[in-house]
Amino acid sequence: MSFKEELLKKTEEIEELLKGYLPREEGFQKTVLEAMNYSILAGGKRLRPMLMQETYRMFGGKEKIVEPFMAAIEMIHTYSLVHDDLPAMDNDEYRRGKKTTHAVYGEAFGILAGDALLNFAFETAAEAVEREPDARTARALGILARKAGIYGMIGGQVVDVESEGQPLSREKLDFIYRLKTSALIESSMTIGAVLAGAGEEAVRAVERVAGDVGLAFQIQDDILDVTSTLEVLGKPIHSDDKNQKTTYVTLEGLEKARKDVAEISARALETLSALECRNVFLEELIRMLITREK
Amino acid sequence: MSFKEELLKKTEEIEELLKGYLPREEGFQKTVLEAMNYSILAGGKRLRPMLMQETYRMFGGKEKIVEPFMAAIEMIHTYSLVHDDLPAMDNDEYRRGKKTTHAVYGEAFGILAGDALLNFAFETAAEAVEREPDARTARALGILARKAGIYGMIGGQVVDVESEGQPLSREKLDFIYRLKTSALIESSMTIGAVLAGAGEEAVRAVERVAGDVGLAFQIQDDILDVTSTLEVLGKPIHSDDKNQKTTYVTLEGLEKARKDVAEISARALETLSALECRNVFLEELIRMLITREK
Repeated sequence: MSFKEELLKKTEEIEELLKGYLPREEGFQKTVLEAMNYSILAGGKRLRPMLMQETYRMFGGKEKIVEPFMAAIEMIHTYSLVHDDLPAMDNDEYRRGKKTTHAVYGEAFGILAGDALLNFAFETAAEAVEREPDARTARALGILARKAGIYGMIGGQVVDVESEGQPLSREKLDFIYRLKTSALIESSMTIGAVLAGAGEEAVRAVERVAGDVGLAFQIQDDILDVTSTLEVLGKPIHSDDKNQKTTYVTLEGLEKARKDVAEISARALETLSALECRNVFLEELIRMLITREK
Repeated sequence: MSFKEELLKKTEEIEELLKGYLPREEGFQKTVLEAMNYSILAGGKRLRPMLMQETYRMFGGKEKIVEPFMAAIEMIHTYSLVHDDLPAMDNDEYRRGKKTTHAVYGEAFGILAGDALLNFAFETAAEAVEREPDARTARALGILARKAGIYGMIGGQVVDVESEGQPLSREKLDFIYRLKTSALIESSMTIGAVLAGAGEEAVRAVERVAGDVGLAFQIQDDILDVTSTLEVLGKPIHSDDKNQKTTYVTLEGLEKARKDVAEISARALETLSALECRNVFLEELIRMLITREK
């Protein structure tokens, strides 16, 4: 099987897995359940659960305990997009070529569906800890929570929102990217490592790799915003320009941005391949992130 | 010490405890940390952490493990108020006589501070589970998550929002009250019982008591909205009327509402005092909820 075929197969498997963790659309609260499921099923690369699963497998993980955490990280990622798109935030009507959640269900349900998804992520992960209450699952839940919070993803998001329309220092931009994007990638990969029982040094190495992957991913996002098209990207291009955002590209130029993506990715792959355990697919996946066109 | 003195002393102790769990207002993400702390410190009766602590004590709990869960439940309660007050929801400028979070920090930070508080609740509770990873702490976290989610508080909130301006059946109203208000009270008291190691039957009895306390509390809220004043209540009165809301009072009338609060509270106290363990203060606290004026 080629890498592309394998990627497609794994993505489909994760889609199926995610569906199994979605709430049933019934009861008085049906509308919010529909809005949650609409948000999750609106597509996406499922990169975070895939990185978690592949890191888990790399360290020899073979159990189902990783699955609720895979669903949880995708729920957290999705809630962050739903709230990002709100009128009071980026005010986006489309994402991945589809209407955003608040565009379909209204602003109040955009807020509530986001809240519900964030909370449901912790319900899903907490139930896994309840089934197997030990140091590993507890730590995985702790990582999930911390990397999504004020010292993780939300921390980056708030600085991003607050900085809109203002010139940004490289230091602040790095802070935003490290928290807003890298934090959930770090969460995914370290949870995979921790649940598989990887040693402390390996967990730290994986966290560094994930930080670099997130950074490369975000810079590539900035590059695509100026070089891609609506058709290829499936979302409005030049949105950073529209929102007067300082990005890695506006700060460092397109050429340096491209060079840095390559360098950061190379560093990540080097650290990854220096580990005792290997996962060729995971290495390919990370390599793909450098050259992705959408 | 009189009940009132004891209540004041315990409330002050909980205020201090909460402060110890708040994030430090530093770093690039300072504004959201300020908004979170502003929201938490804007006041409130601290009823949920108090009910948790007193239930914990009732069953002989003597450790500090309950404290992070007390902080967490208050964070969840606070986030729900912050999001409730948003322009796309109830659009309230004042709560407890103070400007609401979005009125001070803007709409985007109202959303983000709420998200951050919800997430921080789980960070706080997850760290407690990491320190003592066992079946009790894991179950407490599971209860915390489930009772706040789509089958708990958020579930009630979404039906409440969706029903605005529409006539409401008694069945739907009960659903809203049971989830929107009772769920977090149930969370508080059952977590207290579980962490103290109460038996399964006692945990279930406590959950029934809490459900009734929440219901009585919510009906009393409806009563106060039509009978109190801005000065006494510290928030706008007749807000239900303004928002064209069906309440227990509009559905059943003021007299029956008052009678039902008394009956439900009596049932709760009866169940509570039939338990093997007693806590006189907790009984007084619940009795106070029947006759509260704000």
